[in-house]
Amino acid sequence: MKIGRAEVVGDGIVTVASEDNGDVRTYDPETLTLGERVTVKRLLSPVLPGKIVAVGLNYRDHAGEMGIEIPKEPILFMKPSTSVIGPLDAIRYPAQSSRVDYEAELAVVISKECKGVAAARAREHILGYTCFNDVTARDLQAKDGQWTRAKSFDTFAPIGPWIVTHLDDPHNLDIRAYLNGELKQTSNTANLIFNVFDLIEFISHVMTLNRGDVIATGTPSGIGPMNIGDEVSIEIQGIGRLENKVT
Amino acid sequence: MKIGRAEVVGDGIVTVASEDNGDVRTYDPETLTLGERVTVKRLLSPVLPGKIVAVGLNYRDHAGEMGIEIPKEPILFMKPSTSVIGPLDAIRYPAQSSRVDYEAELAVVISKECKGVAAARAREHILGYTCFNDVTARDLQAKDGQWTRAKSFDTFAPIGPWIVTHLDDPHNLDIRAYLNGELKQTSNTANLIFNVFDLIEFISHVMTLNRGDVIATGTPSGIGPMNIGDEVSIEIQGIGRLENKVT
Repeated sequence: MKIGRAEVVGDGIVTVASEDNGDVRTYDPETLTLGERVTVKRLLSPVLPGKIVAVGLNYRDHAGEMGIEIPKEPILFMKPSTSVIGPLDAIRYPAQSSRVDYEAELAVVISKECKGVAAARAREHILGYTCFNDVTARDLQAKDGQWTRAKSFDTFAPIGPWIVTHLDDPHNLDIRAYLNGELKQTSNTANLIFNVFDLIEFISHVMTLNRGDVIATGTPSGIGPMNIGDEVSIEIQGIGRLENKVT
Repeated sequence: MKIGRAEVVGDGIVTVASEDNGDVRTYDPETLTLGERVTVKRLLSPVLPGKIVAVGLNYRDHAGEMGIEIPKEPILFMKPSTSVIGPLDAIRYPAQSSRVDYEAELAVVISKECKGVAAARAREHILGYTCFNDVTARDLQAKDGQWTRAKSFDTFAPIGPWIVTHLDDPHNLDIRAYLNGELKQTSNTANLIFNVFDLIEFISHVMTLNRGDVIATGTPSGIGPMNIGDEVSIEIQGIGRLENKVT
């Protein structure tokens, strides 16, 4: 199944879900039940996370292009919930930066509150997977040393289009970024240094994870700048394609 | 006036407020009206922030003791809402660290959603001020480079005891940390490199601030380690004293 949020005809903004037959129906995340069929006007970010915990340098090739040694433990940072946008929403280029990059990432959405989860039981706490663009003001990242400002501008966390709940193996998915249709990043989640389950173990031993929290698992090599007017797409096998325009 | 959250006799957990006469009453943050008098069993964190934006190295003396040049712009990081605890709650010493420090800070609580606020108008967006302990696993801060993990453990953000809404001047307040009754940090908010209004301008030009968001304004010199069993207090003139025990 895939779960999203949408503006639908006659019903405002609701949580929706779709099974293999393509019908989109309202969905109650409390009772996990499907309701009436709806007509989607616009997809929104499929989740409004309380927090976004992201991981730096989690593909061997990207650590290499950044000239940084492969870390022995995940390097964590956070993006604020106010940076979240949905499919087709605009990434707004901030005045403070002159180098704003795309970063294609697999995002994991947490299903229920958890703390101190063992990797072997991490699956029990995953609602599903979606595409994430960890938009980064590269010049401010270098200038500040700390990555927070560079990654926290409003609109710097496009998420979507759907949360896919049943992936047999999250560690064998092609992941790609396109800029104006041109392939810029291509890798496979098999190349993650710390896999999804390891990350849930590591992060949940630091902080409680709540339902709807998002873990962004890092980006492969091929990062690069976007300009105003550009169209950027993050595509992950079995999940879909997240498209945004830079304004 | 001072605003808090409390467990009260017969009424569960409610928002409360108190004026100069000492009476504690229920308080409706929507209508800004006081209700019935209540008996407080236990004060809780006075706010449940959507996000905590914190500033590193914002007192000249602390930048000096860390051996770091005084920054030209504020260095931002974030602590997750899951790290928040209230007065007298326990700071839990995590297994991953062997050096956990107190950091006394003045915290600002935002009153309403805002973006791109000029420093001259920052006051309009401030609900009030409270004490904050930016608990930090110093060893992990050094190891990771990025500060997020070191500052994000559950219980690493004690806040309280009250949000004081009317301070004539937030930039002339004595700020102190005590460990087991011994004075460890002492400074005055006059020594902030970037003052409260400058910080709101800087941060709100990056990200939207929402009601209840907390800005932790940085710590003066005198940081140091805590051990299990220690009692730590953050005291700010005109606000009060935030006490917590390390377990």
